[in-house]
Amino acid sequence: MSMKGKALFTFQSENKEEISIQENEELVIFDNNSVDGWLQGENSKGQKGLFPASYVEVTRPRSNFNMTDCSISPVGSPGNGSSCFPSTANTPFHMQQGYYDDDDWDDWDDSSTVVDDDGPSGTNGHSHQSLHSNNPNVHYCAKPYIERQDSISSSRKGSMVGRNLNRFSSFVRSGVEAFVLGDVPMNAKIAESYTIVMGPKGPQWKESPTPFSCSIEDPTKQTKFKGIKTYISYRVTPSHNARPVYRRYKHFDWLYNRLLHKFTIISVPHLPEKQATGRFEEDFIEKRKRRLILWMDHMTSHPVLSQYEGFEHFLMCADDKQWKLGKRRAEKDEMMGANFMLTFQIPNEHQDLQDVEERVDSFKTFTKKMDDSVMQLTHVASELVRKHLGGFRKEFQRLGNAFQNVSQAFMLDPPHGSDALKTAISHTGRTYENIGEMFADQPNYDLFHMLDKLSLYQGLLANFPDIINLQKGAFAKVKESQRMSDEGKIGQDEADGVRKRCRTVGFALQAEMNHFHQRREVDFKEMMQAYLKQQIAFYQRVGQQLERTLHRYDNL
Amino acid sequence: MSMKGKALFTFQSENKEEISIQENEELVIFDNNSVDGWLQGENSKGQKGLFPASYVEVTRPRSNFNMTDCSISPVGSPGNGSSCFPSTANTPFHMQQGYYDDDDWDDWDDSSTVVDDDGPSGTNGHSHQSLHSNNPNVHYCAKPYIERQDSISSSRKGSMVGRNLNRFSSFVRSGVEAFVLGDVPMNAKIAESYTIVMGPKGPQWKESPTPFSCSIEDPTKQTKFKGIKTYISYRVTPSHNARPVYRRYKHFDWLYNRLLHKFTIISVPHLPEKQATGRFEEDFIEKRKRRLILWMDHMTSHPVLSQYEGFEHFLMCADDKQWKLGKRRAEKDEMMGANFMLTFQIPNEHQDLQDVEERVDSFKTFTKKMDDSVMQLTHVASELVRKHLGGFRKEFQRLGNAFQNVSQAFMLDPPHGSDALKTAISHTGRTYENIGEMFADQPNYDLFHMLDKLSLYQGLLANFPDIINLQKGAFAKVKESQRMSDEGKIGQDEADGVRKRCRTVGFALQAEMNHFHQRREVDFKEMMQAYLKQQIAFYQRVGQQLERTLHRYDNL
Repeated sequence: MSMKGKALFTFQSENKEEISIQENEELVIFDNNSVDGWLQGENSKGQKGLFPASYVEVTRPRSNFNMTDCSISPVGSPGNGSSCFPSTANTPFHMQQGYYDDDDWDDWDDSSTVVDDDGPSGTNGHSHQSLHSNNPNVHYCAKPYIERQDSISSSRKGSMVGRNLNRFSSFVRSGVEAFVLGDVPMNAKIAESYTIVMGPKGPQWKESPTPFSCSIEDPTKQTKFKGIKTYISYRVTPSHNARPVYRRYKHFDWLYNRLLHKFTIISVPHLPEKQATGRFEEDFIEKRKRRLILWMDHMTSHPVLSQYEGFEHFLMCADDKQWKLGKRRAEKDEMMGANFMLTFQIPNEHQDLQDVEERVDSFKTFTKKMDDSVMQLTHVASELVRKHLGGFRKEFQRLGNAFQNVSQAFMLDPPHGSDALKTAISHTGRTYENIGEMFADQPNYDLFHMLDKLSLYQGLLANFPDIINLQKGAFAKVKESQRMSDEGKIGQDEADGVRKRCRTVGFALQAEMNHFHQRREVDFKEMMQAYLKQQIAFYQRVGQQLERTLHRYDNL
Repeated sequence: MSMKGKALFTFQSENKEEISIQENEELVIFDNNSVDGWLQGENSKGQKGLFPASYVEVTRPRSNFNMTDCSISPVGSPGNGSSCFPSTANTPFHMQQGYYDDDDWDDWDDSSTVVDDDGPSGTNGHSHQSLHSNNPNVHYCAKPYIERQDSISSSRKGSMVGRNLNRFSSFVRSGVEAFVLGDVPMNAKIAESYTIVMGPKGPQWKESPTPFSCSIEDPTKQTKFKGIKTYISYRVTPSHNARPVYRRYKHFDWLYNRLLHKFTIISVPHLPEKQATGRFEEDFIEKRKRRLILWMDHMTSHPVLSQYEGFEHFLMCADDKQWKLGKRRAEKDEMMGANFMLTFQIPNEHQDLQDVEERVDSFKTFTKKMDDSVMQLTHVASELVRKHLGGFRKEFQRLGNAFQNVSQAFMLDPPHGSDALKTAISHTGRTYENIGEMFADQPNYDLFHMLDKLSLYQGLLANFPDIINLQKGAFAKVKESQRMSDEGKIGQDEADGVRKRCRTVGFALQAEMNHFHQRREVDFKEMMQAYLKQQIAFYQRVGQQLERTLHRYDNL
């Protein structure tokens, strides 16, 4: 079904699939499930095509059909780069036939009707099995998480504390409601354990005993099935063992979906956006690589995420058979969502729930404001990129061209003018043309890196409203159960159980908040320093070019 | 009568008297006599007002009425800044009444109905006589020069060589036709003499035996008639005697008009444009001062113009009575136009007229191309000024503002973030806001100076087509008289006389060409060097600001 929308910003189409939209222009949107951050629709001129979802405000809410069918995603699912089913309008033929390849948005091309394997590219050769990846777990969207919640809730034995009616809230969806209400039975075989300790600024994740980093390098175009299928492979080298594995975007995406399912209450960094067109263009490959590196840095720096078994599998497994085994194991992991809450070791320290609530509220205000400012800086920096490539370049090139023309005029009267002056003016013209190119090139050194980091933070910040709701929901349950206990409707022990489990939620959230603060201090300092350094180098280079040019006028 | 026009460039109105016009927009022009470079008309939206004459192409030629009534001006009369009668649409009341004050465009204001004196402001007090400056010589436009030509021609005794039928061509208008045909009687009392010598690059003006320079400083707002009349007075100090005189724009304008009348075949630098509104705004006063200084430099550097008696009077006279006497004397000067041609002492050296013709043709091609390139550079530089004040400033200020907002977001969570980082980011924001201001301010240091010089050259170059036509006309007369002599219609002595006088025109023009080349080499070198120096300083300042800002992140 189509709906209406309004363009928030002006967008200039750059490919034939895209259409231009003007700020405030009324749009028809054919389906508001964005595909890789793009929507399909029609502008007021009647042109049909793609435009960025983030540039558009949908003015009619999505239909219920979409809500139940596709839009349910685990906590922390991204606003853009979502892995939900794409709208049929953009779905390639073989996907419309009911076949869903979880990497298809990364590497389908129009001629491709060949199914993809789900093996890693960590081995040298490519496995040529035509196994459909129709494991239902891969379709994390097609099997909405809520089903599991329902099965849990149907098995419970009768707590009187009310259940949240809105089963689409993150509190319910994530399993935290079930956990707080004590519906999640202690599992005997909890192999994992994540410890929260008290640090100078409150609860924090205990550092990983085996910290490491991981490089992502050398994106290389690969083909298989005699060139019918093409994809990009990245060399991923963890510092553990310095043994490289080769991974495609689809492997990252698989890992990312595992993380989303498992890690309730943790802000999982979003993967770089998918893109329907131009995926093999150099700029896009370069940008995706830079953003995967940032994503990886955040993964390895996170004390909980970095220790995830599935992540280790992703980083280490170079064997085809082992890959599939590990993949299935990760997909069958039971310690996810509600169960994941059972893996926390929390300090004994008393924390007043009211204090925690206030801290969370102030964090909420902070993230809202930070999200706004990150969004604003993103827009300003994007616009500045456009100016560098367009206006700035053009102005300086026009100036250079005008100087060249003066020099050419001076050439027309050879006996009178000094050749040195003509040459110097012509050289000045070339210098300004070159400065125009330097302006156009400069975003490669500064603004793009800033935008990469801002994009990562947009993703991290977008996760927090849902995560904060977990604590809100838990806190409400504490109050409700205490009231019911006071009224004698439930036993104090049951109310105490809710309170105790709510403490776990509170400690975990504070640890995550602390981790976020710590990282953003490091990241923004680094971002600002890197930007300033490149800017200084830029203005110095321009100055030096001009100085060399000025010397051309010496001794004329 | 109104006529049609088309906008060559887009112009954005900045005052309420002005209207915006779009490139290619059809316009109605009420009167195509531009006033101070402005035309009055109506755009396609029906808005009426002023727009720059140079932005518009008039698509219907001016009426004959205008041609005979006002448009006749001596050689070298400017395209803009013309002193012809303004169109009545813009003419203040007291001028429409038939009274013409030659300074009114400089200092009328709406409340002013008081007539102006024509005394100098070289004395401290202001003379309060209400003498109308209705000396007919002041109205150089109202008494067209052609009348004198006619009286000369009616007195001649019967040369058979044909007269140019187009009496509006510069050849006729300047009196050079009359001179070449021998119609100008040798005047016994020729006190002036300008010598042309052979230099390394051909004929050149002999340097003035008493070279000097002259400063223009300290534009000061003056009032008289108890504040009813307001004007700007400049301190003008020639290096001769270092004794300052005080001059108003109207005095410059008087001098300029004398120069136009007298100096046939010399490219008299145009005065800075007049302006109907905002004459007392600081930017305008500053700009006019800069351009008067350039104008003065060209006057003092010209071997012929710098020796003109009227100029000396302008520079030296500080006495009210003497001023008037000298003014009248200059206005009665008989050695102008055709007679001025009699003042040249030329070398005996033989010059082939054909060679001279070729040199002039190549100069014509050169000036055309230089005029185009100066025009282009002017447009580019003007647009760059607009970008500095608008786009560049805005972009950097938006970036600064976005950084500030990030810093403000970070302030919202005091226990977590480092104060030093917040302060550093905020400081970075202020730095970029400041860089925006630096961009906006920069044209004051570089582009405005470039535009000043380009404007001077636009004026000088605009004079040349008419000047070149003088030589063309003279050369045609030589050929015609030789043919008639060959056919026995006139005597060889008469044909030789025409050829001899044509030599004088050729020598004078070559000397002027040479002078122009010499000056433009000096001027353009200086212009480019000054621009580059200021640009280097600018980029260095920006770099230094950013470096200081970067240090704020040290030891965080």
